[in-house]
Amino acid sequence: MRAGIAESQHPLVPLVRALADRCGDDGDYVHWGVTTQDVIDTGAVLQVRAALTAIRRDLERAVVSAARLAARHAETPMAGRTHGQHAVPITFGLKAASWADELVRCAARLRRAEEAVLTAQLGGAAGTLAALGTDASAVRGAFCRILDLAEPEVPWHAARDRIRDLGHALAEIAGAGERIASEVIRLQATELAELSEPLADGHVGSSTMPQKRNPMTCEYIVATARLLRGTTGVLAGAPAHLHERDMGAWAVEWIALPQALILTGGLLAKLAAVLEGLVVNPERMRANLDLSRGQIMAEAVMMALAPELGHERAHEVVTRAARRATAERRDFASVLLEDPDAAALLAPERVERTLDPSGYLGLAAEAAAAVSSRITDGR
Amino acid sequence: MRAGIAESQHPLVPLVRALADRCGDDGDYVHWGVTTQDVIDTGAVLQVRAALTAIRRDLERAVVSAARLAARHAETPMAGRTHGQHAVPITFGLKAASWADELVRCAARLRRAEEAVLTAQLGGAAGTLAALGTDASAVRGAFCRILDLAEPEVPWHAARDRIRDLGHALAEIAGAGERIASEVIRLQATELAELSEPLADGHVGSSTMPQKRNPMTCEYIVATARLLRGTTGVLAGAPAHLHERDMGAWAVEWIALPQALILTGGLLAKLAAVLEGLVVNPERMRANLDLSRGQIMAEAVMMALAPELGHERAHEVVTRAARRATAERRDFASVLLEDPDAAALLAPERVERTLDPSGYLGLAAEAAAAVSSRITDGR
Amino acid sequence: MRAGIAESQHPLVPLVRALADRCGDDGDYVHWGVTTQDVIDTGAVLQVRAALTAIRRDLERAVVSAARLAARHAETPMAGRTHGQHAVPITFGLKAASWADELVRCAARLRRAEEAVLTAQLGGAAGTLAALGTDASAVRGAFCRILDLAEPEVPWHAARDRIRDLGHALAEIAGAGERIASEVIRLQATELAELSEPLADGHVGSSTMPQKRNPMTCEYIVATARLLRGTTGVLAGAPAHLHERDMGAWAVEWIALPQALILTGGLLAKLAAVLEGLVVNPERMRANLDLSRGQIMAEAVMMALAPELGHERAHEVVTRAARRATAERRDFASVLLEDPDAAALLAPERVERTLDPSGYLGLAAEAAAAVSSRITDGR
Amino acid sequence: MRAGIAESQHPLVPLVRALADRCGDDGDYVHWGVTTQDVIDTGAVLQVRAALTAIRRDLERAVVSAARLAARHAETPMAGRTHGQHAVPITFGLKAASWADELVRCAARLRRAEEAVLTAQLGGAAGTLAALGTDASAVRGAFCRILDLAEPEVPWHAARDRIRDLGHALAEIAGAGERIASEVIRLQATELAELSEPLADGHVGSSTMPQKRNPMTCEYIVATARLLRGTTGVLAGAPAHLHERDMGAWAVEWIALPQALILTGGLLAKLAAVLEGLVVNPERMRANLDLSRGQIMAEAVMMALAPELGHERAHEVVTRAARRATAERRDFASVLLEDPDAAALLAPERVERTLDPSGYLGLAAEAAAAVSSRITDGR
Repeated sequence: MRAGIAESQHPLVPLVRALADRCGDDGDYVHWGVTTQDVIDTGAVLQVRAALTAIRRDLERAVVSAARLAARHAETPMAGRTHGQHAVPITFGLKAASWADELVRCAARLRRAEEAVLTAQLGGAAGTLAALGTDASAVRGAFCRILDLAEPEVPWHAARDRIRDLGHALAEIAGAGERIASEVIRLQATELAELSEPLADGHVGSSTMPQKRNPMTCEYIVATARLLRGTTGVLAGAPAHLHERDMGAWAVEWIALPQALILTGGLLAKLAAVLEGLVVNPERMRANLDLSRGQIMAEAVMMALAPELGHERAHEVVTRAARRATAERRDFASVLLEDPDAAALLAPERVERTLDPSGYLGLAAEAAAAVSSRITDGR
Repeated sequence: MRAGIAESQHPLVPLVRALADRCGDDGDYVHWGVTTQDVIDTGAVLQVRAALTAIRRDLERAVVSAARLAARHAETPMAGRTHGQHAVPITFGLKAASWADELVRCAARLRRAEEAVLTAQLGGAAGTLAALGTDASAVRGAFCRILDLAEPEVPWHAARDRIRDLGHALAEIAGAGERIASEVIRLQATELAELSEPLADGHVGSSTMPQKRNPMTCEYIVATARLLRGTTGVLAGAPAHLHERDMGAWAVEWIALPQALILTGGLLAKLAAVLEGLVVNPERMRANLDLSRGQIMAEAVMMALAPELGHERAHEVVTRAARRATAERRDFASVLLEDPDAAALLAPERVERTLDPSGYLGLAAEAAAAVSSRITDGR
Repeated sequence: MRAGIAESQHPLVPLVRALADRCGDDGDYVHWGVTTQDVIDTGAVLQVRAALTAIRRDLERAVVSAARLAARHAETPMAGRTHGQHAVPITFGLKAASWADELVRCAARLRRAEEAVLTAQLGGAAGTLAALGTDASAVRGAFCRILDLAEPEVPWHAARDRIRDLGHALAEIAGAGERIASEVIRLQATELAELSEPLADGHVGSSTMPQKRNPMTCEYIVATARLLRGTTGVLAGAPAHLHERDMGAWAVEWIALPQALILTGGLLAKLAAVLEGLVVNPERMRANLDLSRGQIMAEAVMMALAPELGHERAHEVVTRAARRATAERRDFASVLLEDPDAAALLAPERVERTLDPSGYLGLAAEAAAAVSSRITDGR
Repeated sequence: MRAGIAESQHPLVPLVRALADRCGDDGDYVHWGVTTQDVIDTGAVLQVRAALTAIRRDLERAVVSAARLAARHAETPMAGRTHGQHAVPITFGLKAASWADELVRCAARLRRAEEAVLTAQLGGAAGTLAALGTDASAVRGAFCRILDLAEPEVPWHAARDRIRDLGHALAEIAGAGERIASEVIRLQATELAELSEPLADGHVGSSTMPQKRNPMTCEYIVATARLLRGTTGVLAGAPAHLHERDMGAWAVEWIALPQALILTGGLLAKLAAVLEGLVVNPERMRANLDLSRGQIMAEAVMMALAPELGHERAHEVVTRAARRATAERRDFASVLLEDPDAAALLAPERVERTLDPSGYLGLAAEAAAAVSSRITDGR
């Protein structure tokens, strides 16, 4: 086959000849009335169907694991961070719920893309199926039934949007995976150490620095996501197929489509494993919440003062206290208790209560539980 | 505002202050408990809703016009072309049906993306809405009801897949537009001259070459599609928002999202106009069908011989005849009639009938009519 | 090795162990003081050097062939086309000169990128080479000398711009190839038939349509260029390596860099073959020049009238004549001779001369010859 | 003009008319013999020249500031981090030297791109300049001299690689900027707090959380880099201009090129300001070095043991000690002194010396100084 393709410069004719040889007298009917692209496109669709079995399974594992993390840690407080800075407390469950929620949308999107893409191709040389004469319609119908694929009203030789929908759905899986993996890498940083990807026994972290716990699985996920985005970008980048069939645009799919499926499969297997075995360290989360000695609760203090002082004035009071606490390296509480404006309105016991992260978690636990139940109830 | 933003380096605070000033005593409650991203995200969603009104309208115009072309030209024969070469005859209606079919999928995809993206954002500093205390849930509910937007279970500050779904839907519209416009440009080429985009009176084709009919509207569509793909690529390219909110990834949307909507709007207005006023030249289509003096019907001849000679032998006979016709610059028919193998099986009258393009259109007219009815019946 | 990598999840440690095993007592010094990325990066650079040998050779073949086409066809007239429309005559040599000129810039760009990228990597765990103690500088010097690679002042573990320069240089080769191949496809279209990629004997054009001459090599070039652009886009898309080394960003190169080199090599082998064997059909070029029955010379007529009538008035006169010639399907010459304004200024012999494409080629032949000589003289 | 463009759908004719009107009798010679693309391309090149003045100036500011940071902090120790984990010590000067080194390459690359791109365009309708008759060559020569632009041997209407070289050079500036800004964001994180972008007085960090120091300028840099990459990607993505001029591919530059220049200018102004005012906190760097209570020096200990124990055995000993220190939350030093294998070879004083980060900085200071001198000496 390899030699035949090299000599003929044709991607299919050598296969047709080989099949025909094996079919004896009926061999003459191999490839009867159809075009190369009918065969390769339909074959690609069947490969997609096979690949999506593994992809769906590992995506489901990831969804379920994220939902479980959301449920288990619905009330585990940790620092919420925006712009890379401590903002206000959240719970780890809320973060995991955001992952689970995005992954569920990935699954729905993939289902829709799969439905669209599982469409047969049978149009003949230029899409009219004229070579099959009056049998054309019946043959196409039977072809689709046998393969259990949808029958298109017009051939899609030059209209590849269904393939691009699949590309988008795969890229979104990668995007969700990259967001989760990047977050784990970041929260596994030496200084934060709140999460850790599972470390199997045989894994080698660093060849020279035995103290390290490198989040290499998450790094592979990130790298895979970037590669996949390049690949689906290739699919997205050539929509203007010329005339009835355009091999210059079409042939990119021969490499890009299988590569996209392989990369997604690899990414999801790793992502599912990371989410299933994720090591969560509530102690470190708590320690980091205390790192600013109370300042992470500045908004809570401001909201406590605002009904009396007004929003803007409360902001000024709290800013002043926060700066002083930083400059003098003191607990936020003690500075607040010395501040005439704050102290006038907030008794010591009220200051203490206001500075307790577990009292300022808003809808976090409720949201985490809701997302988690929605997912696990539906399964 | 401009000065305030320059000084504060903050995209929203100057607006908050200005609104508060205008609200008298209630001004203190402007921006109460929410975060900048709540406001900008919800505002962006409202802009999306407004923009999609125009986009949906012009997309519908394009769908309907393409369907009409499919119906009107269901039986207009023209050369089907693959690899840039004449293949077998099709009808222009089949080509237009392929456009209409893809545009209908664009509309369905856009509807789904719109549903997803019309979701409010209200999470406060890190998504817990803690600053609103026990009112959080009620306030968020009212906020979404008043704006008529979906209420998210968890905030999507860092999970931007709905925005990317919209980007994909817009890119697909552009892709369909680019395919159609590129085809018009190509079929309007001096040598083909089968189609022409509408030429308004005031339009200037070339400043120096008065004979030219430049398909400039289609070229603008192609250029716009490429720009749009760059823009939606930016949206797709930064999925890994860090922690609870990440301005480095988020702020790209401030430019990319409106730009994507504007480009799509511009593209669709032009595309609808091209499809509505497309000049179709059946005479030139017919002339081009005759260009090869019958050779475009080579497959038909081969299929006529194949039942007797077998597929492979028929291919050889027809190849030999085609080469001779080319070398001697003769009609394919006359060469076939001289060819002992062909002539033995096909009487002159049969050759003539076999070489008639209108007898070898397969399912073209039927498919064009089916797509067209499906679209117009549904409206 | 495969099993070792799977178990350790580490890309290099199994190799280090295997090498150490083979080195007997000295095995302990394998990988002494260096980091995995030192080894993989330097290895990649050596692979780049090897791959560029083939790439440079085929790029040179393409440059020389394009230059030869420019020289040989410096005076072969053909239709110049803009917006897909006939504009004014050019020569095929000018077109080929534009290809040669771009390919020469590709070669210069590649040389610069190669110089930059052939830089060794040896920095140890975080770039200080501290593990080598006082020998660090001497070891690094020797390492670079032995491998004949440039020695970097600071390690480039996290600064990958040289790799991206290479990516850009490869993408530009692909871009030039795609431009040339697309032009061949277009000029090989049934209606134009001015060029044809070489058709080797064993090649199969179409499995069913024996009359076709599909430009499949050029289509493979186009497809390869698009795939390559996706790959170099991946390299370009992750510049922000974190801290001292960042595997999430770096590991994309493991797949993207070899793939980019392979795709470029494949593309160039095909491109060189197409340019070396390109079939040029001056007869068809001439026939297409005559297709508009003189109107392709409208600008020449306008410029002949402009000194007397003024530019704008001349434009009006020529536009009127062109429209009339089109409407009445007549030769442009005969209409001009009937037009009072044109005929008053241009005698029949002058009209004839003005409508001769070979008299309106401007700098085409000169430019083609100049580019061609510059290239062949330098070799 | 706006109305004229809308009516004519032509980007230049209204301008030509307006200029002609203002030129009295000579007005007829406005646009004489040239094509629209000659004018727009040459105008774009002049805009590029103007924009690069600002871009070069701010790039130089960034280079010099980075070099100064390298010199000033050549010996300031901090944690080197790989995979997001503490690896071995480096100096901040080494990190800044890596920035400076990449920025210097950006400047050299930009210079080369500028040289290439500052090329005039004057080819007339299809590149032959035939409309200028025998004056063509002289006119083109004068045109280039007056504008001080290079004269191309062949027109580059359809060969846009110089523009793409500029795009690459701008994208690389953005890439360097994104790497630096991302690093500042990360090192400014609450837990690390080693760097901080300058905080001007009027800047508003957070509207609700007064304790925050949001690295918003760096975030704008990151967002701008991503937008710019999308824009230069558009330039890179359409190399296959058709025939002699192709507006569908060319017109993307009308938006993408100015946008790329504007984004680069904005990014560099911010980047220069960040580097000039960067707040470096050596105390926090030192504190973070001590965070692992000695384990960041594990490699140093291993290298100290390796000459006696062999590399592999030393790795085992150190790993065992590191795990124990972590499990028992003890200083690495005390665990090592209890470890029989380590203690046998390393006396307490040797352990102490080996665990001192300032004694394990390798070539860091030397490299930082070398890069810095190379830059400042050349200025």
